[in-house]
Amino acid sequence: MSKVDLSIYDNSWYKPGPKLKRVSWYIVNTLVFDTYFSLGSGFKRAVLRFFGAKIGKGVIIKPKVNIKYPWNLEVDNHSWIGEGVWIDCLDKVIIGKNACISQGALLLSGNHDYKKVSFDLIIDKIVIEDGVWIGAKSIVTLGVTCKSHAVLATASVASKDLESYGVYSGNPAIKVRERSIEK
Amino acid sequence: MSKVDLSIYDNSWYKPGPKLKRVSWYIVNTLVFDTYFSLGSGFKRAVLRFFGAKIGKGVIIKPKVNIKYPWNLEVDNHSWIGEGVWIDCLDKVIIGKNACISQGALLLSGNHDYKKVSFDLIIDKIVIEDGVWIGAKSIVTLGVTCKSHAVLATASVASKDLESYGVYSGNPAIKVRERSIEK
Amino acid sequence: MSKVDLSIYDNSWYKPGPKLKRVSWYIVNTLVFDTYFSLGSGFKRAVLRFFGAKIGKGVIIKPKVNIKYPWNLEVDNHSWIGEGVWIDCLDKVIIGKNACISQGALLLSGNHDYKKVSFDLIIDKIVIEDGVWIGAKSIVTLGVTCKSHAVLATASVASKDLESYGVYSGNPAIKVRERSIEK
Repeated sequence: MSKVDLSIYDNSWYKPGPKLKRVSWYIVNTLVFDTYFSLGSGFKRAVLRFFGAKIGKGVIIKPKVNIKYPWNLEVDNHSWIGEGVWIDCLDKVIIGKNACISQGALLLSGNHDYKKVSFDLIIDKIVIEDGVWIGAKSIVTLGVTCKSHAVLATASVASKDLESYGVYSGNPAIKVRERSIEK
Repeated sequence: MSKVDLSIYDNSWYKPGPKLKRVSWYIVNTLVFDTYFSLGSGFKRAVLRFFGAKIGKGVIIKPKVNIKYPWNLEVDNHSWIGEGVWIDCLDKVIIGKNACISQGALLLSGNHDYKKVSFDLIIDKIVIEDGVWIGAKSIVTLGVTCKSHAVLATASVASKDLESYGVYSGNPAIKVRERSIEK
Repeated sequence: MSKVDLSIYDNSWYKPGPKLKRVSWYIVNTLVFDTYFSLGSGFKRAVLRFFGAKIGKGVIIKPKVNIKYPWNLEVDNHSWIGEGVWIDCLDKVIIGKNACISQGALLLSGNHDYKKVSFDLIIDKIVIEDGVWIGAKSIVTLGVTCKSHAVLATASVASKDLESYGVYSGNPAIKVRERSIEK
């Protein structure tokens, strides 16, 4: 059978942005975001917008958040990014209104083609629609849309789309019940 | 169906302590606990007690431990808090004697009511009884009691009580065998 | 039933190396490896070799990598150690050629004997053969061999050997398909 050869790995087709911008962001991410010496959400929203993110009003960003490329990130009004969240946005990550990404969650927009000798990089976007709750330490993988008001329980892994108002649990996450929201 | 509205989220009923105490602890947690530039367990036990934790003798606290509010924490004699453990003690977290919380574990005492438009904060205590072993990267959620000498295997999630001397595995954790301890 | 007594825990038989070497490495690990202020892979390969690791050519080491004892670590040519990987090499960890350990993965070579009052330390080696892919946030436990070109999916836990060219998923990981690699 064929064997992987990482010495021929080639992701030169992937252009995430000018080097100066990437290095500048890397430093800002380390000093301002992925740290507990963290300033308020207002300051962080302004910094993210400066680096090309679309960030709505009232978005809360807790300490120790790791964001790969903010110019791939959109977060709409009143959504929350919890402590220790890792947004590995090699591709677009689009978060709607009133969504909660809880502590330690990972949004993972990159992958590799393990059927290729060259182990090619694969990227795809992630969409988290309005009112979705991504639970603590859970993971959403590339290409997945978590539809309006879906819930992904603690430490679960969503590798397929989540239906609107569905509650999902496990690895891989399966639907365990409906979410009904009372006034 | 109704929609979540995080702009009306209100946790003002939750009073985790005076602001000065919380800010002081936050700095100490960052500089002394959640770091690899970490001093010995004796010093850390003294600091935790100063901030209101009840800490027994011989308790071991490894580097890179993240503790939310130490005044909610009790750890009895000869228990261990492993490297990278996250004790998110919004409510009481009570750990008995001779318990081991292994590296990367998370004790998660907060939650949200996903059936409410206002996504209300929910807190509840966690009890880890004597001789319990919480495995590496595993998670215990709020309201759970891990009874005497229960074992939660690596990367498992306890969202219901664990029986005494039961060994549990998976997400959600299910009982896989009995624990028998020989002299 | 018998009870655990951690006050009699005794790992004095375990000799991971002279104290000066361990302390020196601890500082280097904190300042050079387990940080985002990270220098290039060439520099890190040289430092690892200086501390007794066997590191092949072209090995990539991303930021925020935590390595317990590098003198227990072998990584062959063109393998990758991803961002946030934790190599807890209390015993030998041997990684072959062209292997990828993705971000947030944990290689866990230590354990405890939960059937003993004294909760004895157990260590065993981990072998990751050529072309293996250990997915993001997945865990390999002690004594496990991941055979040539096996794949462990995101957030899965390998506690038994993985067959050559098998794709595994879940906690505990089970085989879900064969890996075929085209030219």
